[in-house]
Amino acid sequence: MYPCPVTLVTCRDSKENDNILTFAWIGVLGAKPPMIGIGLNKSRHSTAMIEESGEFIVNIPGEDALEESDWCGCVSGKDVDKFGKAKFTKEPASKVKAPLIKECPVNIECVVKEKLDLGAYRLFIGEIVETHADEGVLNEEGNIDFAKAAPFLYNVGEYWSIGKKKGLYGFAVKKFSD
Amino acid sequence: MYPCPVTLVTCRDSKENDNILTFAWIGVLGAKPPMIGIGLNKSRHSTAMIEESGEFIVNIPGEDALEESDWCGCVSGKDVDKFGKAKFTKEPASKVKAPLIKECPVNIECVVKEKLDLGAYRLFIGEIVETHADEGVLNEEGNIDFAKAAPFLYNVGEYWSIGKKKGLYGFAVKKFSD
Repeated sequence: MYPCPVTLVTCRDSKENDNILTFAWIGVLGAKPPMIGIGLNKSRHSTAMIEESGEFIVNIPGEDALEESDWCGCVSGKDVDKFGKAKFTKEPASKVKAPLIKECPVNIECVVKEKLDLGAYRLFIGEIVETHADEGVLNEEGNIDFAKAAPFLYNVGEYWSIGKKKGLYGFAVKKFSD
Repeated sequence: MYPCPVTLVTCRDSKENDNILTFAWIGVLGAKPPMIGIGLNKSRHSTAMIEESGEFIVNIPGEDALEESDWCGCVSGKDVDKFGKAKFTKEPASKVKAPLIKECPVNIECVVKEKLDLGAYRLFIGEIVETHADEGVLNEEGNIDFAKAAPFLYNVGEYWSIGKKKGLYGFAVKKFSD
């Protein structure tokens, strides 16, 4: 399955340890209410943290955080304080205890509503309870401007930028209605 | 949540009606076994079809199918035979009854393993039982070459192409290990 978005998932355990997980296996799963699903290998450090806290934040980095994002996906929070070393700045969230990453233009606070075992993976389905977006990445309609937010993708060991706007939803309807 | 991949989900009901659903709310949710989740509005035509059949296929279009993909997301399979009108060609799948879309370079056959109600949405979690990839979109290692497959993205009413390769997994580790 591709293309996968690169996101940074943050979480906090009951001892106030924070972690950052670079994460591409994530998807929107519903809109009413808005839901995001993340499937984590059960052996990962963050899996136990989210199991315990029932909360996580999806932070969406721009290309300017590509190096930090790569590194956060290569080391374990068991061994290193990723926030300190990656020079990401913690900011308090509104509705969950885990911290936001200030350097990410968009942060989505989630509360776990469903959990499911999927073999070696644990699926957490979080309801979106708050979303933050830097004004600098919004267009005139208040939506995310891809050219400004500059998200990036993951594909079998490669990071890819986004390209150009190719059309608007519904642009081809006229062609097929003839 | 962004960026979201644009995929074409195909399904077949017990009366051998086929449908195509243009779909961005989808994510990889596990790897052992490989799992894909799709969250569909309960009111959609395909939701009942997948509920009944327990199967679906994720077809990943390239940019050359952007117009057809847009149109398939703008009309309902209740009203129109999308395969006929969009000039997509049906090909038999290996392990499920729904048809592949020949014009999509990658087709992923899925069997539903878990279903979950998420408010107005129905989540289907499918285990990948077969994957097809046209040789023309593979690189020398046999992985998907993004430059050849040319997948595209959806963002609040906009379609976006992918851009350039920006780095390989682990490229930043040296910087942070000092």
